[in-house]
Amino acid sequence: MLEPEDNERLVRVGPGKPAGHLMRRYWQPALLSEELPQNDCPPVRVRLLCEELIAFRDSCGRAGLVDAFCPHRRAPLFFGRNEQSGLRCAYHGWKWDTQGNCVDMPSEPPGTPLKDHVKILAYPTVELGGVIWAYMGPREHMPPPPDFEWMRAPPTHRFVTKTHEECNYLQAMEGGLDTVHSSFAHNNHLNDEKAFRNFDTAPRTEVERTEYGIRYASTRRAGENRRYVRVYHYVMPNQQMRGTFTPLFIGENGEHPYATPKSDGHLWVPIDDEHTMVYNWACGRDETVPLSAEFRDRWETLAGRGADDLIAGTYKLKRNRSNEYLIDRALQRTQTFTGIRGINTQDYALQEGMGPIVDRSKENLGSSDKTIVVLRKVMLDAIHAVERGLSPPGVDPQSHRCLRPYDAVIPGDTPWQEMFEKELVAKW
Amino acid sequence: MLEPEDNERLVRVGPGKPAGHLMRRYWQPALLSEELPQNDCPPVRVRLLCEELIAFRDSCGRAGLVDAFCPHRRAPLFFGRNEQSGLRCAYHGWKWDTQGNCVDMPSEPPGTPLKDHVKILAYPTVELGGVIWAYMGPREHMPPPPDFEWMRAPPTHRFVTKTHEECNYLQAMEGGLDTVHSSFAHNNHLNDEKAFRNFDTAPRTEVERTEYGIRYASTRRAGENRRYVRVYHYVMPNQQMRGTFTPLFIGENGEHPYATPKSDGHLWVPIDDEHTMVYNWACGRDETVPLSAEFRDRWETLAGRGADDLIAGTYKLKRNRSNEYLIDRALQRTQTFTGIRGINTQDYALQEGMGPIVDRSKENLGSSDKTIVVLRKVMLDAIHAVERGLSPPGVDPQSHRCLRPYDAVIPGDTPWQEMFEKELVAKW
Amino acid sequence: MLEPEDNERLVRVGPGKPAGHLMRRYWQPALLSEELPQNDCPPVRVRLLCEELIAFRDSCGRAGLVDAFCPHRRAPLFFGRNEQSGLRCAYHGWKWDTQGNCVDMPSEPPGTPLKDHVKILAYPTVELGGVIWAYMGPREHMPPPPDFEWMRAPPTHRFVTKTHEECNYLQAMEGGLDTVHSSFAHNNHLNDEKAFRNFDTAPRTEVERTEYGIRYASTRRAGENRRYVRVYHYVMPNQQMRGTFTPLFIGENGEHPYATPKSDGHLWVPIDDEHTMVYNWACGRDETVPLSAEFRDRWETLAGRGADDLIAGTYKLKRNRSNEYLIDRALQRTQTFTGIRGINTQDYALQEGMGPIVDRSKENLGSSDKTIVVLRKVMLDAIHAVERGLSPPGVDPQSHRCLRPYDAVIPGDTPWQEMFEKELVAKW
Repeated sequence: MLEPEDNERLVRVGPGKPAGHLMRRYWQPALLSEELPQNDCPPVRVRLLCEELIAFRDSCGRAGLVDAFCPHRRAPLFFGRNEQSGLRCAYHGWKWDTQGNCVDMPSEPPGTPLKDHVKILAYPTVELGGVIWAYMGPREHMPPPPDFEWMRAPPTHRFVTKTHEECNYLQAMEGGLDTVHSSFAHNNHLNDEKAFRNFDTAPRTEVERTEYGIRYASTRRAGENRRYVRVYHYVMPNQQMRGTFTPLFIGENGEHPYATPKSDGHLWVPIDDEHTMVYNWACGRDETVPLSAEFRDRWETLAGRGADDLIAGTYKLKRNRSNEYLIDRALQRTQTFTGIRGINTQDYALQEGMGPIVDRSKENLGSSDKTIVVLRKVMLDAIHAVERGLSPPGVDPQSHRCLRPYDAVIPGDTPWQEMFEKELVAKW
Repeated sequence: MLEPEDNERLVRVGPGKPAGHLMRRYWQPALLSEELPQNDCPPVRVRLLCEELIAFRDSCGRAGLVDAFCPHRRAPLFFGRNEQSGLRCAYHGWKWDTQGNCVDMPSEPPGTPLKDHVKILAYPTVELGGVIWAYMGPREHMPPPPDFEWMRAPPTHRFVTKTHEECNYLQAMEGGLDTVHSSFAHNNHLNDEKAFRNFDTAPRTEVERTEYGIRYASTRRAGENRRYVRVYHYVMPNQQMRGTFTPLFIGENGEHPYATPKSDGHLWVPIDDEHTMVYNWACGRDETVPLSAEFRDRWETLAGRGADDLIAGTYKLKRNRSNEYLIDRALQRTQTFTGIRGINTQDYALQEGMGPIVDRSKENLGSSDKTIVVLRKVMLDAIHAVERGLSPPGVDPQSHRCLRPYDAVIPGDTPWQEMFEKELVAKW
Repeated sequence: MLEPEDNERLVRVGPGKPAGHLMRRYWQPALLSEELPQNDCPPVRVRLLCEELIAFRDSCGRAGLVDAFCPHRRAPLFFGRNEQSGLRCAYHGWKWDTQGNCVDMPSEPPGTPLKDHVKILAYPTVELGGVIWAYMGPREHMPPPPDFEWMRAPPTHRFVTKTHEECNYLQAMEGGLDTVHSSFAHNNHLNDEKAFRNFDTAPRTEVERTEYGIRYASTRRAGENRRYVRVYHYVMPNQQMRGTFTPLFIGENGEHPYATPKSDGHLWVPIDDEHTMVYNWACGRDETVPLSAEFRDRWETLAGRGADDLIAGTYKLKRNRSNEYLIDRALQRTQTFTGIRGINTQDYALQEGMGPIVDRSKENLGSSDKTIVVLRKVMLDAIHAVERGLSPPGVDPQSHRCLRPYDAVIPGDTPWQEMFEKELVAKW
């Protein structure tokens, strides 16, 4: 459990809030590159850390991320015209470049000094790994751009998608970091004794604080004298990486049609205190095994966010709170633990079903919750560090550049640290 | 009129509120038995007195009513699995029995002391008369279960339904206790001079406080030298009983196709401060006259809550605020007082149309409002009694066990008290 | 920009608020005459200056505007019966005339003194120019009815419509008074060099305070040695008048199929702080040129509020915020500045898109904003006057009776004041 005051410190991300200050010290995903498909395309609304912004791509392909409202009379720039090298307000024609400068002010007399004087709030952006990242913190603290391994992998070996979740980022992220729930919520083969989920419902967890956040490992019995070990990274402030070579379902021999040597992970990016944009990435580990379009389709569909699972024109799930995630109670009785289709849809049902912001003072934590206890401590410490004028962990890309997660089934008595040592290093 | 402070005391029913304390001293209907149709069936959401709960029926048929959120990490138990003798959370598999005990904790190591230590909030329930009742107050004050006559009648002679109303319970209940409005709001035969509604629009009311609440009687002229007298009970804290032998429409001779010797009534159960679940019961008075399925259909349809009147899969009316109750202004001009079909739909239009919580400081009460003036006094006195550590009226089932309401057309000069004496006693 | 305190003083119009007091010193449009199409027709809900009211037309054709809730028990009079000379509550039959008197109280004994004692809040109304106007201020300050020229024009030469807008009245009205935005937001002929909108995007504005509010004039270059001058009136507290003889589109020679000698204007009537009912009037200037039905259709369609543009049975636009005004980005790129169809729909997109109440402390005003700077000053001064017990400007119809706006293309060096002098006087 957590004191209500600490909960508040963790969950509120607006300007001026403790966790708001923390989140703004890191580059954050603002939108996918695919949302601005070409130069001078229509602008896109972005709500990020409780701020209302507009993204646009200029004539040179640069991404701008500016205040959603024109500084002249606060007209909505969403209805603006994305013209040659700038976004022009549809009210009085003031035109803004990606740096926040006014490059045309046609409603005023030529030569007006107002044109040089007025700026629009514009956040620095960088486009890497299929994502447009923004830095919303103090300029003097702006770190170099993020440099995760999956961002460096060639597009043939990597993809990123995103999905909208209706709850605070922290309960979503805690659900992601939680390893044990996958033996329950994601057990889709209730009656198959050989299914991985049924092997061991109380895995052991080892948790270690690092300069970038947390490294932790879960260990499950996996048949006679074998263990399934999965090593995860939590990278400050809101990313998880995990190995998924051994796929979500594993037979006794590790065989499965979805098995592909890859890592994957999420970034839980706060839209505001009650909504989260979850970025989902996957990255092949082996140069000789690209992530094919067919694989991507199967993987995303398995997660519940395939093309047919989304409401057209949005990043929202058709199976959502308003329709109780189309829970099938007969299926739940006989085949899957939740009766809900889609691995991440199962997560959303549980996380959104807690209400927009969970009251952690009413929890009763067990030994399986070790990771999230450390997570909260890491976050609270980092918030406190920022308050004292210090730099929080994981800001420097040096701290996360070499990270790679890993998982494997290994003999029952081998120390995983030795066996995994070489695998836990980025290759891209 | 009522001072705003007294209004607040009466209408707020959440934990810690004055009327919340009062309501929690009585057994309250939580849901209909039909909502948990068989052992181990899917759980059902229940919002009651501002609390979010989950009802389930275990393998022995017992009804459980527990916190809607698992005490482990606050996952929603609505998505839980109702398994052998317990409801299992879909997040980490913790399993709860109807008494609030944890009967399995598979995500923790075997033998963990946490399993015996952690409890879930579970309210006592009792299933009687087609209703699952809950007691949500202090255990040391828990009274014996309710024992109204209609609960003892055989199922062949009794039925209970429920409908969702979008306003505070008190303005709904005041509308129910109000006798005079039926001459207006429920007058569906404007131009029939012989119709009961047109006989007498200003009935006399006698009101008497009792150990269980209030007994009151309305008297209307009903043709030459005849009176229609109807005796009602208000049973603390939120039930009304009334005789409906003489049916809703009465010709000079009392004849009518719907005439059946029966009582009926409502319980206005607060979902929260702005929503009410109205339980509607009917109970035959005569062993030889069961309430047939056909009668039930006709009666419920007359009330506006027949099978075709409800939104499928809900207890909500198709004719509701969002569509202005499908008021038919031509019908209103020529045939019925409101132009709205359904006796209780007429009530809902008027009660919901007041807004979620009526401001009683702006009222101007007349002599026809005598009953509700006494009702408010009875409630305020009971709230005050609870605050002083006393037991409020009507808690002991002894006080309501023998109650039966009655109505009849009688000669113009006979005292109704004598004529009704034997009829006002429960026979079941 | 405006201090937040001054913004609050201007935008809040509920009872007791500074601008609420000001607005209540003037007759305000409550609804269109067409909404009460005949005597004893069904009542209509009116929300005006944050108050919930009911309008009805009695048997003599008088319009009543009363509290939406019956003073007896606060039942909604919307479900009432509009009977012979009064509106009868559907709950207990109390009947109210347009003056607020109770003319029948059938639920009480005959002769009850309550009937004379109880009144319903009833605002004075007057029906003029196709509009039912209400006075909601102190009786001792009630001015004579409004007397604008367009109200006196014969119905053949005048029409009034209304449309619902989802934002505060002030940002809507500021958008209406703003002259320069029409060169951008309403430029529907981007590539036509001869189109009026493209002539001159930085018009000069002359602004003059008057006894009724503001008179201002915009001047645009219009080809070789010609100027387009448009004279507007802002009439306290929420009306604009402008000449539209020279139509919205003008070729070099002033020719255009929509050209008709007329004035038009809007009244921005606050429904509440976040919703506005915009009344749109048009009035022919020339006795020999009536405004035909065909003209009205074309004009209203051009504005975006033609018959096909409204959601049936409402005064709301089909192109609205929920569907992003059906913006057509391809059209925006190539033909029109906004890609939104309908002149006023363009306005609504920009004004509603600011959010319900714009934060004027974040503005950066230029020379083109002169008129709205004066507007705010006039309003703040008037609010202050009312607070000091004085009468605000423009209350006396004498101050606005003779007003007529005008516009014309004139030679480049002629003073418009002389040329327009005779045209700026009401003829009806």
